[in-house]
Amino acid sequence: MSDVPRVVIVGGGFGGLYAAKKLKDEALDITLIDKENHHLFLPLLYQVAIAGLSPGDIAVPLREIFSKNKNVRTLMGKVTDIDVTNRRVIYPGDELPYDALIIATGAAYNYFGNDQWIPHAPGMDGLESALEIRRRILMAYEEAEQEQDPERQQALMTFVIIGAGPTGVELAGAIAEMANRTFKEDFRVTNPNRTRVILIEMLDRVLPPFPPDLSEKARRSLEDLGVTVRTKTRVLDITATHVLVQTEDGAEERIPCSAVMWAAGVKAAGLSKVIHERTGVELDRGGRIKVMPDLSIPHHPEIFVVGDTVYLEQGGKLLPGLAPVAMQQGEHAARQVTRRLLNGQPTQPFRYRDRGAMATIGRAAAVADLRIVRLSGFIAWVLWIFIHLMYLVGFRNRLIVFLQWLWNYLTFRRGARLIVERNAVNRD
Amino acid sequence: MSDVPRVVIVGGGFGGLYAAKKLKDEALDITLIDKENHHLFLPLLYQVAIAGLSPGDIAVPLREIFSKNKNVRTLMGKVTDIDVTNRRVIYPGDELPYDALIIATGAAYNYFGNDQWIPHAPGMDGLESALEIRRRILMAYEEAEQEQDPERQQALMTFVIIGAGPTGVELAGAIAEMANRTFKEDFRVTNPNRTRVILIEMLDRVLPPFPPDLSEKARRSLEDLGVTVRTKTRVLDITATHVLVQTEDGAEERIPCSAVMWAAGVKAAGLSKVIHERTGVELDRGGRIKVMPDLSIPHHPEIFVVGDTVYLEQGGKLLPGLAPVAMQQGEHAARQVTRRLLNGQPTQPFRYRDRGAMATIGRAAAVADLRIVRLSGFIAWVLWIFIHLMYLVGFRNRLIVFLQWLWNYLTFRRGARLIVERNAVNRD
Repeated sequence: MSDVPRVVIVGGGFGGLYAAKKLKDEALDITLIDKENHHLFLPLLYQVAIAGLSPGDIAVPLREIFSKNKNVRTLMGKVTDIDVTNRRVIYPGDELPYDALIIATGAAYNYFGNDQWIPHAPGMDGLESALEIRRRILMAYEEAEQEQDPERQQALMTFVIIGAGPTGVELAGAIAEMANRTFKEDFRVTNPNRTRVILIEMLDRVLPPFPPDLSEKARRSLEDLGVTVRTKTRVLDITATHVLVQTEDGAEERIPCSAVMWAAGVKAAGLSKVIHERTGVELDRGGRIKVMPDLSIPHHPEIFVVGDTVYLEQGGKLLPGLAPVAMQQGEHAARQVTRRLLNGQPTQPFRYRDRGAMATIGRAAAVADLRIVRLSGFIAWVLWIFIHLMYLVGFRNRLIVFLQWLWNYLTFRRGARLIVERNAVNRD
Repeated sequence: MSDVPRVVIVGGGFGGLYAAKKLKDEALDITLIDKENHHLFLPLLYQVAIAGLSPGDIAVPLREIFSKNKNVRTLMGKVTDIDVTNRRVIYPGDELPYDALIIATGAAYNYFGNDQWIPHAPGMDGLESALEIRRRILMAYEEAEQEQDPERQQALMTFVIIGAGPTGVELAGAIAEMANRTFKEDFRVTNPNRTRVILIEMLDRVLPPFPPDLSEKARRSLEDLGVTVRTKTRVLDITATHVLVQTEDGAEERIPCSAVMWAAGVKAAGLSKVIHERTGVELDRGGRIKVMPDLSIPHHPEIFVVGDTVYLEQGGKLLPGLAPVAMQQGEHAARQVTRRLLNGQPTQPFRYRDRGAMATIGRAAAVADLRIVRLSGFIAWVLWIFIHLMYLVGFRNRLIVFLQWLWNYLTFRRGARLIVERNAVNRD
């Protein structure tokens, strides 16, 4: 056994990935464990759902990212428990001892007690769900093309997105655009222009975390694309064939539709409950871990938490569950691990440097709140593309994604419009 | 109702696609029906299985191919029956009347009465099976990385391919190369060089349809890549954990392994039996339809059969189930439909113009039998790439596939090395 300190990072999302990247050149023995074999660039996942990109364009095997770093070991496995006394991470088949632990297990969609809606309204939280949403949208058009009953045909061409945060807004804009432009020539019986895309939001405007004037611009861009925006509307029920909502005036309305997508709020993923039970750390209502200012857990200076699993206030406000927050926290936790384990220095508090937020609405339109300046329209869209390409991990992916975008932009076509059945070996 | 003659094409593989392309500018009302929504470039499917390409790179939505041709309608549906008396194609939900019918339903893998092997040894016959094979190979390495028992670890890193035709040879070469080169740096515990790729063939050489000297060259190229080639070997049983074979000298041998792939012979797909029952046409042992010299069915000059579903001899030999045969037959059937329906001319017999066959073996090696000249090594490989890119449908796919190849060639890396679970919505 070597006496190199052992660091275990649980989760290969933005938080875990940036922690591992920051630590990879230190004299540390690092294990990165994730239940998937890849890092997923979540901000572009909606592009997979609308068949604009292939899964391989926005995901990179974790092994590949660290193939040159012999001190970083990558494992595929789902961590089930943490033995905080003996400092061991437990997963099916084995245990991983640690001197420092970084928890970066991210978030899952919160259905607020209505888990029976999950199969009817998948969230944009992984490649499988994105491919499932793609399958439902494309299949709906294939069925509409063969449907004689006009009412049933309209229902097949109605898509409901619940939650008007950045993900919901981007998804709604992209589906509307796909229907109006890409599909224009593809169908004979069905008129894709009759597609209805309904974006439902409980609050009084889209993009609630953005300044109100950008919300208004986003709403107008969405409506220009044909999206029906319904704010102050509550979801009462979701089934395989319709969504039941309560409108602003208290009336109930049944919306027949073919595919429902959930983008309405997240909670911390499963492991935070385990950590609460093992360490007694407090959780918020969304299951987020209330960490110390340096991101460690009270009485456990060897355990850090980063990303969407963290509850931390700054300037009296909860830090949002965004990629930049997770990246900065991952790097911060990595620095604290180095200070503690290698340099014997005290840890430092985390401070989020907010560089702004942005959302894209279909082709060549976006809104960006850069704090010092607010942008909208084409220039915000170019900036959005540039920043997302810059952060996409791996040169190959960046090049391919750029080419696909250029192709889509120039031709209004989508390359990945394939329906792949889920049954493993399906022969006739 | 218009009096434009109606042509129904069942199947969007090479035969059906080339028939529809040939007919699209004629004064005909054409319906192309397929159980999938895409045309699949089958000769490159093994590249999806070894994570060299994404599904979207080798598949194009049929709708997109014919989006500019208003007289071509595309339907997604699985044809279940044909009413030859009333000239109607029957599929769930509706019927399609026809004046001429082209059957291009292709082939399925033949397990020669051992259908219990199908789940253990998927064939390379669609995107789902290719993705399933990819998942099994990648998961095997992930498990090997965590396995302590050396014997079990070796089994996890052993892959068996059954059948040494072009598909089997290409798959074996590609897996060996992926293990030896791409994975070289990715694993810490597992040594990917210990991968065993075993190619099993019942006959006495690989690539039986090729001239013996090219078979010998292919065998040597495979062995250089580390593939164990076992000819004159019969498969007795396949389970989830091993393959039982009978060697040349009659001995039985059990090969523990993690993934088995089937590439050992095909039969006509399901619809040929229906056609036999409805028209009385003769089938061969593999379910292929014994057509007239013009590719029509005896006593049914309005029904043509093309591609892998056809039994037709030329020069005393059965025409092989290859893409060029299907393409030429598709175009021939289209010409005969035009002659009959539009010009009132008699039909002509089909003649296959054999321009040769080729197979690639890993990176920068291939064999090509061009009848006038036989090639092997790098020059055959360049030719192989050129021809396959030329036939890939759609400009975008051609460009992306070329870039991926160049990338793989220059870096030995694979872009699409993702494991996507098959359960639809899988949250923690």
